[in-house]
Amino acid sequence: MTVTDQVNGNVNLNATANSDALENSQGHANKVKVAIIGSTGYGGVELIRFLLGHPQAEIVSVISASSAGLPITDGFPHLTGILVSDLDGVDPVEIAKKADVVFTATPSGVSSKLVPQLLETGVKVIDLSGDFRIKDSSVYEAWYKHDAPDEQVLEQAVYGLCEINGDDVGGAEFISNPGCYPTATLLGLIPALSAGWIDPASIIIDAKSGVSGAGRGTSLMTHYAEINENLKAYKINKHQHIPEIEQNLTQIAGEPVTVTFTTHLVPMTRGIMCTMYAQLNGTYTNEDLTELYRQYYEGRPFVRIREAGQWPATKEVFGSNYCDIGFAADHRTGRLTIVSVIDNVVKGAAGQAIQNLNLMMGWDETTGLKLSPVYP
Amino acid sequence: MTVTDQVNGNVNLNATANSDALENSQGHANKVKVAIIGSTGYGGVELIRFLLGHPQAEIVSVISASSAGLPITDGFPHLTGILVSDLDGVDPVEIAKKADVVFTATPSGVSSKLVPQLLETGVKVIDLSGDFRIKDSSVYEAWYKHDAPDEQVLEQAVYGLCEINGDDVGGAEFISNPGCYPTATLLGLIPALSAGWIDPASIIIDAKSGVSGAGRGTSLMTHYAEINENLKAYKINKHQHIPEIEQNLTQIAGEPVTVTFTTHLVPMTRGIMCTMYAQLNGTYTNEDLTELYRQYYEGRPFVRIREAGQWPATKEVFGSNYCDIGFAADHRTGRLTIVSVIDNVVKGAAGQAIQNLNLMMGWDETTGLKLSPVYP
Amino acid sequence: MTVTDQVNGNVNLNATANSDALENSQGHANKVKVAIIGSTGYGGVELIRFLLGHPQAEIVSVISASSAGLPITDGFPHLTGILVSDLDGVDPVEIAKKADVVFTATPSGVSSKLVPQLLETGVKVIDLSGDFRIKDSSVYEAWYKHDAPDEQVLEQAVYGLCEINGDDVGGAEFISNPGCYPTATLLGLIPALSAGWIDPASIIIDAKSGVSGAGRGTSLMTHYAEINENLKAYKINKHQHIPEIEQNLTQIAGEPVTVTFTTHLVPMTRGIMCTMYAQLNGTYTNEDLTELYRQYYEGRPFVRIREAGQWPATKEVFGSNYCDIGFAADHRTGRLTIVSVIDNVVKGAAGQAIQNLNLMMGWDETTGLKLSPVYP
Amino acid sequence: MTVTDQVNGNVNLNATANSDALENSQGHANKVKVAIIGSTGYGGVELIRFLLGHPQAEIVSVISASSAGLPITDGFPHLTGILVSDLDGVDPVEIAKKADVVFTATPSGVSSKLVPQLLETGVKVIDLSGDFRIKDSSVYEAWYKHDAPDEQVLEQAVYGLCEINGDDVGGAEFISNPGCYPTATLLGLIPALSAGWIDPASIIIDAKSGVSGAGRGTSLMTHYAEINENLKAYKINKHQHIPEIEQNLTQIAGEPVTVTFTTHLVPMTRGIMCTMYAQLNGTYTNEDLTELYRQYYEGRPFVRIREAGQWPATKEVFGSNYCDIGFAADHRTGRLTIVSVIDNVVKGAAGQAIQNLNLMMGWDETTGLKLSPVYP
Repeated sequence: MTVTDQVNGNVNLNATANSDALENSQGHANKVKVAIIGSTGYGGVELIRFLLGHPQAEIVSVISASSAGLPITDGFPHLTGILVSDLDGVDPVEIAKKADVVFTATPSGVSSKLVPQLLETGVKVIDLSGDFRIKDSSVYEAWYKHDAPDEQVLEQAVYGLCEINGDDVGGAEFISNPGCYPTATLLGLIPALSAGWIDPASIIIDAKSGVSGAGRGTSLMTHYAEINENLKAYKINKHQHIPEIEQNLTQIAGEPVTVTFTTHLVPMTRGIMCTMYAQLNGTYTNEDLTELYRQYYEGRPFVRIREAGQWPATKEVFGSNYCDIGFAADHRTGRLTIVSVIDNVVKGAAGQAIQNLNLMMGWDETTGLKLSPVYP
Repeated sequence: MTVTDQVNGNVNLNATANSDALENSQGHANKVKVAIIGSTGYGGVELIRFLLGHPQAEIVSVISASSAGLPITDGFPHLTGILVSDLDGVDPVEIAKKADVVFTATPSGVSSKLVPQLLETGVKVIDLSGDFRIKDSSVYEAWYKHDAPDEQVLEQAVYGLCEINGDDVGGAEFISNPGCYPTATLLGLIPALSAGWIDPASIIIDAKSGVSGAGRGTSLMTHYAEINENLKAYKINKHQHIPEIEQNLTQIAGEPVTVTFTTHLVPMTRGIMCTMYAQLNGTYTNEDLTELYRQYYEGRPFVRIREAGQWPATKEVFGSNYCDIGFAADHRTGRLTIVSVIDNVVKGAAGQAIQNLNLMMGWDETTGLKLSPVYP
Repeated sequence: MTVTDQVNGNVNLNATANSDALENSQGHANKVKVAIIGSTGYGGVELIRFLLGHPQAEIVSVISASSAGLPITDGFPHLTGILVSDLDGVDPVEIAKKADVVFTATPSGVSSKLVPQLLETGVKVIDLSGDFRIKDSSVYEAWYKHDAPDEQVLEQAVYGLCEINGDDVGGAEFISNPGCYPTATLLGLIPALSAGWIDPASIIIDAKSGVSGAGRGTSLMTHYAEINENLKAYKINKHQHIPEIEQNLTQIAGEPVTVTFTTHLVPMTRGIMCTMYAQLNGTYTNEDLTELYRQYYEGRPFVRIREAGQWPATKEVFGSNYCDIGFAADHRTGRLTIVSVIDNVVKGAAGQAIQNLNLMMGWDETTGLKLSPVYP
Repeated sequence: MTVTDQVNGNVNLNATANSDALENSQGHANKVKVAIIGSTGYGGVELIRFLLGHPQAEIVSVISASSAGLPITDGFPHLTGILVSDLDGVDPVEIAKKADVVFTATPSGVSSKLVPQLLETGVKVIDLSGDFRIKDSSVYEAWYKHDAPDEQVLEQAVYGLCEINGDDVGGAEFISNPGCYPTATLLGLIPALSAGWIDPASIIIDAKSGVSGAGRGTSLMTHYAEINENLKAYKINKHQHIPEIEQNLTQIAGEPVTVTFTTHLVPMTRGIMCTMYAQLNGTYTNEDLTELYRQYYEGRPFVRIREAGQWPATKEVFGSNYCDIGFAADHRTGRLTIVSVIDNVVKGAAGQAIQNLNLMMGWDETTGLKLSPVYP
């Protein structure tokens, strides 16, 4: 039930059937109808930002278990006049009546139970939680500390790291959207690893994230007075993104890969930087590497390879779906240093989810995602 | 000379005539051609961000006096793969050969000399400096401390505060884009002032701005270690936006208005908040005020009036062209408090300049400007 | 029960009786023994920072209702190796056995009940809550929305705005420490008001605070991703510091004073700036004002009057007990603008509380408080 | 020429001979007289903050090549009423007449020429530049890109990493104060390296610094709008602190050590975190490591070893001279991760310089440095 506001093109999801009819006559009938479960988290509200400008998708329902019945602008006044809607409750059958595709921006442990119910209704699902990323249930349970999802549903999940697995995503019914750290890590490491230029046993990943990565739930760690003017390491060797990274690197390397992975909280809202180290298997120059990476990502506009010796900064991708990568081979140590940056809320969550929607539907992968980084 | 990159829709201004022909055949021929002078400042680069997504305008030249000949990505690597162009020099005749409309995001004192030359070539101009805002040259010189522009050119300038002067902007050849502080101040005060509900002699404006308002030039005041975790008052009673505010309030009130105006630098990149105080001429309730303001701005989607007692925050307009306004009448003191917020780089500069382009060309004023605020 | 660690001079409150005896022999016997209730809040932990360096006071107990029994370093690892102590519970009788003076850094509504019990035991009390600042109980209840404290106890409370009421503080048994906003406001306004230079009916206070002012409790408003890169007005005309300001200005003016008072949250941890406006009663120059203010605060080292036209910034008092004041008379409007800044955790809370301890005990008011601002 | 201001104990370096005599009679005659060259940089002004509270040293001259003759409060108004002094010019002979010890907080390339002149006058020198840290002049010139200092003077320089080389510092005439990154790195690595528990060939250091580390000079990189809400890698494999780290690790290991070292700029003012990785030579537990580190630093109060699995944050040492260290051995990878944090302006510069003064003079190393971290 959607309608375009005549004055300013904004979306009113509380419209009547009448105005809906009007809307259909305006040619929106062919748009794919999407619903967002978890609309009051940062991933959910970022999905809204991008989908409002998507020419081939329309939001038909914004859903929140905790705030059902309330206007979405109660929690997000920045949407005043842009998205006029009360939040719906989580009811898979009702959702399926309205939507063709459902984004589940729900916490780990919730998705594992909710997604099977959604898939049964016949809707397509793009899940932003970590619940369907780990193929080995025992590994999942060891790192996530709760029950793995149903094996059969898990098998259906296509891991949607678009630039690597894009071909698998086309036509998929159920996509598991990658984690924020794994996205930055894997896009940075895979070209060198798949070319055999680095030693898989030597990989160390020093990851840094803005505070929005911790979500909208309040805690002492994310309290402004605690994390402002502060830099904090956390979950060293224990982050649940480690098995996701290792599973994918293992697949590329063709042998078991174990990594050292450290996470830090940086006093900024958005942005992830992964600084990665590995032993080079030969004397490759920066120019060799630039050539390798540019060829690897040819035709994939969201990965930008910097000139050798120029380092990307997180602000240079702020608010956008880009992943920027720089690197330097060091002849003194024989090591390669790779720096990759993303906006954790976009390429690390909502943006890549929409990129997956595009690939799933057979659209150009940049559809609705061509926003430049916001700078400064 | 522009061409659409086939792969990702990005803009390459270094294209050959050949590809240009190609591009024309793609139906871009009818777009209005725009040039941006001052492309390496924050106002200029924000014009680029919005114009890249504008369906009826295309950037044909990005111009910088200081960096002519260099790729724009040297200074702004976030545009890598998005805008491929070397910066052009400032040559009015050459600019006029390419462009229909020129944005001059040049410093005060530069625009006053450059704009007359541009107008002579027949292009339309939207000037983002303060040089053509003050109609009384002696007032201009007292506050700006340098020579006023040519009187005849000054007379042609239409002050482009869109929601107030939109009708004058339609069809104009030369628009003077309002200052950032005056935009937030005037949009907040004018409904109450024009209704006669507040005493013009009692107006006090306490303004706060993010640091990008000081421009990209380096200085000790904008050094990170000096202004981070700091709040600083500056130019009290001396800011050059005072006469701009007073000129416009005087016009609305029909009597000379003098204001107290204080500016503060806040440790954030973007955003302006003006907290304004005035004596009420009667016992108006918050509901009366909400009604008054909503009626005043009916049909103007970029001004959003909050429910009485709800206060807008700068982040709620971050990266967008909105101006959000809240207010409270206080029966204890008989005063009205008004809070208005804008993103200084958007509604306070580049966004309003594009809104002026839209009105000037007779397009919907929201064209190319429908980006939601980036939150969080 | 305290002992000086021989190696590094740090304090171990878990010491045995034996080491205590040792300690006494070192000449600490004459120090005043202080306890801090509410040691796990920002006011409490800042009291610890200053008292550890106080030559005439020693901390004998750090107390927390919520964390009793836990080491204080669990919540505040920055105190590792500096203050070795488990938190004590709130037991007035036990506290009185150890301490001569108790700081109650407890929430409003808690202090009102706790302080009478403490006073009964004979200890001196310095209360940092707002519970004993408002002399008229009906006014208190109207703004604080809960019961006023016992009238008899309330009468004993001396309002400890040191530079104004210092003489009353000397020898007092029970001091009510001023609020953060009132401290900055009153120190800025009182010299001009008491001289009759400004119109008491015209006072408007635009106040801005860092986020630590909201305390250590978590909330969406103080969540990093919400308030970083944001500026937010709150509680306009409704802040409970309004009656505290008005009560004191009324006393100075000798007539009822009502003020307009607006509060804003600024994305920084520490610091308050009050920008204040009032109508001048005559044509005073900035030099007149400088002279007036310097005379008023002669011999009071913690108030620093800036040269006319130089504006204090919050970072210039960061971490210190100073209140810096600047001002400008504006001949165009006949108004005076006053800017005062403090560190809300120091002069706005813990620092002033220790200054009150000093005055109460007859010591130099700067004892233990001579730390320079931390810059940058 | 110093005198204690009678009212508030602050320092007035512009005093007359008369007041100087007075001062001497107050018993300050035995204090060591210190001068600070480079008083208008962040290192210099932090020396002032700590020396003002140092019981055995007194500042007799604050010196600046660029601002000689101006009051120091022109550039640093936070010192208003605290340090009343005009800046002196750089004249080694004049300095030697006043001072016993000189701190040279001068840029690299300046110190190399200035220090020999100072030493010739017979004063003791503590140099905060990098000019005298590298013992091999060819290595110095390769990394610093300018001429090495005179060999004979270089030989006199004692590298003042207090917790490691403290014994050499006692009685030294000329100390080269360590760099900020090397301090955090070396204190974190040396216990494990000297015990032979880690492989010297496997060391990778991922370092992050607040923006004050770049000094007070303005640049685009330190412009607030550029580095706020940003995280930026820089000088990868090229930082001039690399040879300083390698020289010291080589000395400890007894074999040539080459490291991978990456630096990042973090949007905060103060703080350095070094996250370090090395291959373990055996199956050491976290408890083994805690024991090793605590023994190594026994009796050195400024190094604090955290419980295994607890990670220090930069804010926990803000404004103080502490270096906090945490670590985790990872059985999956056989690697050790070490996290060390310091305040770059204190333990990374001015604080350690004063610690060196203390050791040089035979005083307790904590003298004047017992300030707790400022939290929050």
